[in-house]
Amino acid sequence: MSAPSPQRITLIGLGTIGMSMAGLHLSRDHTIIDVFDTRPDFEDYLFKTLPNFLTHQSPSSSSPSVISSLVSSGRLNIHKTLETACASATIVQEQGPENLPFKQSLWAKVESLAPVTAHFWTSTSGIAASAQQQDMHDKTRLLVVHPFNPPHIMPLLEIVPSPTTSPSRVEFAREYFSLPGSRHRPVVLQKEIPGFVGNRLAFALLREACYLVQEDVVSAKDLDTILMASLGPRWAGNGVFESYQQGGGEGGIQAFLQKLGGTMQEVWDGLGKVNVLGDEGTQWKDKVISQTNDAYGNLTVGQVREKEERLKEFVRIQTKKYGHVESKL
Amino acid sequence: MSAPSPQRITLIGLGTIGMSMAGLHLSRDHTIIDVFDTRPDFEDYLFKTLPNFLTHQSPSSSSPSVISSLVSSGRLNIHKTLETACASATIVQEQGPENLPFKQSLWAKVESLAPVTAHFWTSTSGIAASAQQQDMHDKTRLLVVHPFNPPHIMPLLEIVPSPTTSPSRVEFAREYFSLPGSRHRPVVLQKEIPGFVGNRLAFALLREACYLVQEDVVSAKDLDTILMASLGPRWAGNGVFESYQQGGGEGGIQAFLQKLGGTMQEVWDGLGKVNVLGDEGTQWKDKVISQTNDAYGNLTVGQVREKEERLKEFVRIQTKKYGHVESKL
Repeated sequence: MSAPSPQRITLIGLGTIGMSMAGLHLSRDHTIIDVFDTRPDFEDYLFKTLPNFLTHQSPSSSSPSVISSLVSSGRLNIHKTLETACASATIVQEQGPENLPFKQSLWAKVESLAPVTAHFWTSTSGIAASAQQQDMHDKTRLLVVHPFNPPHIMPLLEIVPSPTTSPSRVEFAREYFSLPGSRHRPVVLQKEIPGFVGNRLAFALLREACYLVQEDVVSAKDLDTILMASLGPRWAGNGVFESYQQGGGEGGIQAFLQKLGGTMQEVWDGLGKVNVLGDEGTQWKDKVISQTNDAYGNLTVGQVREKEERLKEFVRIQTKKYGHVESKL
Repeated sequence: MSAPSPQRITLIGLGTIGMSMAGLHLSRDHTIIDVFDTRPDFEDYLFKTLPNFLTHQSPSSSSPSVISSLVSSGRLNIHKTLETACASATIVQEQGPENLPFKQSLWAKVESLAPVTAHFWTSTSGIAASAQQQDMHDKTRLLVVHPFNPPHIMPLLEIVPSPTTSPSRVEFAREYFSLPGSRHRPVVLQKEIPGFVGNRLAFALLREACYLVQEDVVSAKDLDTILMASLGPRWAGNGVFESYQQGGGEGGIQAFLQKLGGTMQEVWDGLGKVNVLGDEGTQWKDKVISQTNDAYGNLTVGQVREKEERLKEFVRIQTKKYGHVESKL
């Protein structure tokens, strides 16, 4: 089950995440991509949309004609049925709706259609593989491959097996996304947990952010400025544990926890407890939504493109080497 | 009280943050810096250490001789007493120990020594101006200017007035750090709150990170990889509210909160409740400290330098403009 050999990847569900995933897979050599989506205008939509996700191409080739040439060369196959889409897959990956009955029924069907050796990956952001595989016969084949938006640029893939997923299938996925030259960084989680790790960290910070806006400590826009002017660039270069290891000086994170322990506990005791569901949430929601709308409105396609270019630079710099002069200290 | 005019800044306490602050102020035109610290070898230490924080200089000029020329030109004055250090200040800024009685006594002394027009800034990471100013006669002069480490590179300054701080002194500080050409981004908070905003956001995420390590969902090192491969670069380019405004598509953050509300509430309900003080913390602390030590050990000076170079690039890219092709979508 070695990953670097040529793969034939069936993508089910070509919304924004699915298109971006297609971009990711097409940036690899020797991949063949089969796509299937139930929207009636799927083929037109694909020709118009997919070029935006082929960032390994030069900007000038980001036009519908690049899709024609992928189709005519056989690297991209557009299917009208799930049957033909899955028939020759080595990997089937779904980016469908976040709906448990839909996913359970889909995987049972896919299991009956795909070759017995094919790997099954779900791009879900929230539904564990152990729940999705309920109606499958073989419960060793499915695992979560949770990307961060947009997957064709963002390095992270959270690989989350169910307790019954075969370790060799986990390793196959990890290897596929670690191919030499890839900027992608797959991480395997040891346990299923709601939100996986990336979104748990994001939502923990978001909850406090919503609380601070509710309490009028800071506006939504100023909070964003604070994050971008401090923690964003810090965590782009250093993880949170690494940062505090460095912040603690010679004593490392242990010294940091001792020195800042009082402030940290005071902050932890006072963290906001807003809720997204239920009555309690109303006040902060109104403030957050109106302040965010006022600050940003709807981003134009040009603004989104500019932000993607910036994101690509951040990711590129993460792996760049720097010459440095040893200090005399 | 306009900020861009020449300023004479007294720095009290020249540890790592103080040295970095000196670097920040010396990167401005027309500033004069007076420094005072009680360590016995202060002058030697300054000559050896400060060159590392003069990043606006070329690397080759980062040597003790650059300090000699700053001293002989009168831009940098090394003092043996608080009296002479404060005598001509337009701004007095302290980076002393995080100890309330020390700061209260310091500001009462500084008030008696500095010109009556001088602005008083504390770089504290945790002690509110309203508490620090207790023994001062004039309670309109002091405010928090909380930097993020390292201040000579990191753009954020959290400006946190006490309820009695004069608004014109708040505006003066904001203007000083917003000088044209500056990469610094001051943000004024509307209320004093423990940890201010940046560290509250950081500690909210850290608490969940410690919980996930405690629960063996992920190792400290893998958690750092996840953060650097997703949220770090995302938040370097977009704030948290802006990201979800974009993530919600045409419906913005309101649509995002509706779509992800169930998962988000499940995550919020299950966020870890580890404590840094008290018995409950032992288990996660041992795991976090040992895994962080195993992953990183002590960073060498060369590694720290390399990380600073990377941080400077992230910050530079944040303000870079990109040409882009408007999509046909």
